[in-house]
Amino acid sequence: MFEVTIRVHDRLQRMQPDIKLATTLFDTLDRTTRRGRGIDRDSYGDGEQAAHDLIRSTAASLALETAVDPIGNLLMTLPGRDRRAPRIIVGSHLDSAPQSGNYDGAAGVVAGLAVLSALQGAGRQLECDVTLMAIRAEESSWFNISYVGSNGAFGLLDPACLAVKRSDNGRSLESALLERGFDPQPIRERRALLDPAQIRAYLELHIEQGPTLVTERLPAAVVTAIRGCKRFRNARCLGQYAHSGAVNRPQRRDAVAATVALLHYLETVWVRHEQNGDDLVMTFGELYTDPAFHAPSKISGETHFVIDIRSVSEPLMDQVADAARRAAARIGAEYRVNFDLGETVDSPAVVMDDRLREAFRAQLQRPFEMPSGAGHDAATFAKMGIPTGMMFIRNEHGSHNPDEAMSMNDFDVAARALLGLLLDFPEL
Amino acid sequence: MFEVTIRVHDRLQRMQPDIKLATTLFDTLDRTTRRGRGIDRDSYGDGEQAAHDLIRSTAASLALETAVDPIGNLLMTLPGRDRRAPRIIVGSHLDSAPQSGNYDGAAGVVAGLAVLSALQGAGRQLECDVTLMAIRAEESSWFNISYVGSNGAFGLLDPACLAVKRSDNGRSLESALLERGFDPQPIRERRALLDPAQIRAYLELHIEQGPTLVTERLPAAVVTAIRGCKRFRNARCLGQYAHSGAVNRPQRRDAVAATVALLHYLETVWVRHEQNGDDLVMTFGELYTDPAFHAPSKISGETHFVIDIRSVSEPLMDQVADAARRAAARIGAEYRVNFDLGETVDSPAVVMDDRLREAFRAQLQRPFEMPSGAGHDAATFAKMGIPTGMMFIRNEHGSHNPDEAMSMNDFDVAARALLGLLLDFPEL
Repeated sequence: MFEVTIRVHDRLQRMQPDIKLATTLFDTLDRTTRRGRGIDRDSYGDGEQAAHDLIRSTAASLALETAVDPIGNLLMTLPGRDRRAPRIIVGSHLDSAPQSGNYDGAAGVVAGLAVLSALQGAGRQLECDVTLMAIRAEESSWFNISYVGSNGAFGLLDPACLAVKRSDNGRSLESALLERGFDPQPIRERRALLDPAQIRAYLELHIEQGPTLVTERLPAAVVTAIRGCKRFRNARCLGQYAHSGAVNRPQRRDAVAATVALLHYLETVWVRHEQNGDDLVMTFGELYTDPAFHAPSKISGETHFVIDIRSVSEPLMDQVADAARRAAARIGAEYRVNFDLGETVDSPAVVMDDRLREAFRAQLQRPFEMPSGAGHDAATFAKMGIPTGMMFIRNEHGSHNPDEAMSMNDFDVAARALLGLLLDFPEL
Repeated sequence: MFEVTIRVHDRLQRMQPDIKLATTLFDTLDRTTRRGRGIDRDSYGDGEQAAHDLIRSTAASLALETAVDPIGNLLMTLPGRDRRAPRIIVGSHLDSAPQSGNYDGAAGVVAGLAVLSALQGAGRQLECDVTLMAIRAEESSWFNISYVGSNGAFGLLDPACLAVKRSDNGRSLESALLERGFDPQPIRERRALLDPAQIRAYLELHIEQGPTLVTERLPAAVVTAIRGCKRFRNARCLGQYAHSGAVNRPQRRDAVAATVALLHYLETVWVRHEQNGDDLVMTFGELYTDPAFHAPSKISGETHFVIDIRSVSEPLMDQVADAARRAAARIGAEYRVNFDLGETVDSPAVVMDDRLREAFRAQLQRPFEMPSGAGHDAATFAKMGIPTGMMFIRNEHGSHNPDEAMSMNDFDVAARALLGLLLDFPEL
């Protein structure tokens, strides 16, 4: 008995994610989906499909049960001891933004496969099924909708999205689905393909899209929450065009000056919250005068801009959006212009499951926690009330660009944590 | 003798600008050069030529001596008693910006004709020749060069300008000149067509291009100086594109935030000078993120903007431009971005002749003085050392748009002042 215990322990100690497989998969993904300098895995297009084909054939070769749902999500299952028990889903997406890097999305799917390969290789069966889910169309770059695969799996998509045209070739989402042999009907009927009650937990590994782990010199982090977003997508300021030399300040209705005053004020609001230790980021990623009318010798009569407010706290986002509206009214009056901030487009903040956070932390040598500023499929699962946990892998140069850089050592740290968590899964 | 004196005095009292002629000319100009909603008197194009044809034929019918110089400026002379004495030039331009109003430029030429018609009608000969000059191509909208006619008359144009293409049809300035039968040779040789020593004074009436006279409820103003301009035409800020949610403030290199901070600071500089009573206006008429790269969910890595600084004081413009450069360095370091303000494009400030200012003031019931924020042909004559005087006529809604609105009553006030000044010309 003693000897057996030692051997089992040894085997557990030695069980490691299949990094060799992961390396091969990343290489093959890179080779098959690089177009010029960057990666193009277009949602429901040839690039995403090539990635799905590779992952599916690899899963089949590992003798995982593979299935594709009506909207194209790929499910690869390692059967558990109790096949009727709610399953654990490990997931991420396989599409990429245009001219992106090789890791955004794919890292989480490849990590899942590296972990399932290790479990399979060790003949290790878990209590419940573990399903690796390669999710479709997470990126909004192609169809201007995020989370098509995960939202679609829960019947959360507005059927109107089927008519949305792909930004580059104008093909609708519906025809993209049909061309791949998928079925738009569940989306049209808002029919769920997954039952939240049958999902014990959702786990996602993803490269960090900011520089925090690089700055902290850490390979991985446990995600505390996914920031929500409150966005004034189509804010405008309307003033009056006039000669730049001939109108003194008190008589101007200068849209640029007023917009600068508003955005500068909002930065002071941000800095004040930052000093309070509040979680908040604010971005004015688009700001422009009208090229059809602006000129060096004209006071500008119009600006367009975006105010993007993100936080893990919904009340804080509301508070900042209100501050923006009040400031727009006050500064508008001061500069004799009209701000039209428009409605906000909102996505809610979601928090990760405390027990999964703690369990992920326990897997890391140097536990570190941080919020996710970007949205992820994990947010969809968390919104459905499914206990959700997420980890970030260090990544240089941000994401959605060809310079994404994740080291296999960092990937290994995160994949080990995922494997360790599955082997020592907490009570939820 | 007594009776004669009375009659002469009476006649002087009764001598008035020919407002009937002026009204007819404005109506005809409007009818022949309106294209859709606005006026199009394209420099060296059909629109400007139609205006020249009308003015020339009217001058000929008034028995003025008419001549056209090699580059198309039209000179209409009322001979004086001493024909060899330096002459007085009354002038303005006949071209307009695209889709402009009927008065910018034309008002000064029509006023000259209304005054010469009155003098001619009264048989009144002045001491020296008075030449009304209808100047070509003052507006930069067509060939992206200002003051072609007046600068060309003094040999001040860079011959390279002959190759400049018209913004709408791509025809070069040289071919535009040749097609009208004019001669590019004097421009190529930088040859002057007018001798400053032979010009006693230059006088120009022009509509105000700002709202000052509307605000002051005054029909006309004496111009003190023409503001110079120091312009950072191609300023840029280079930061780094990154995900709007995933990068906290201390790690950002946000080109929009840095640009907002710079422009907001420059407004505080302006307000401080304004409080000191300094003459200054500052405009950021173009400001834009790059539409090929910006996005609502991206921190912007680049902005383009213009800083347009105007004042009647050269040292003040230098001081503000230096403040902009220092602030760009300081704020650039603070936000971890690089500002590249580039070189400035300068046009010098010029002051109007003190004696002509005083003489114009003496002609007004309610004398009021103000600087000109926009540039005018008068600046060219002043730069040549010619005593220059200028008056503004009240105008609603600014200029370079179809809504320019000048009343004939206000025009009459200004034209009377011009006539009065010519009849009672000061020693210079």
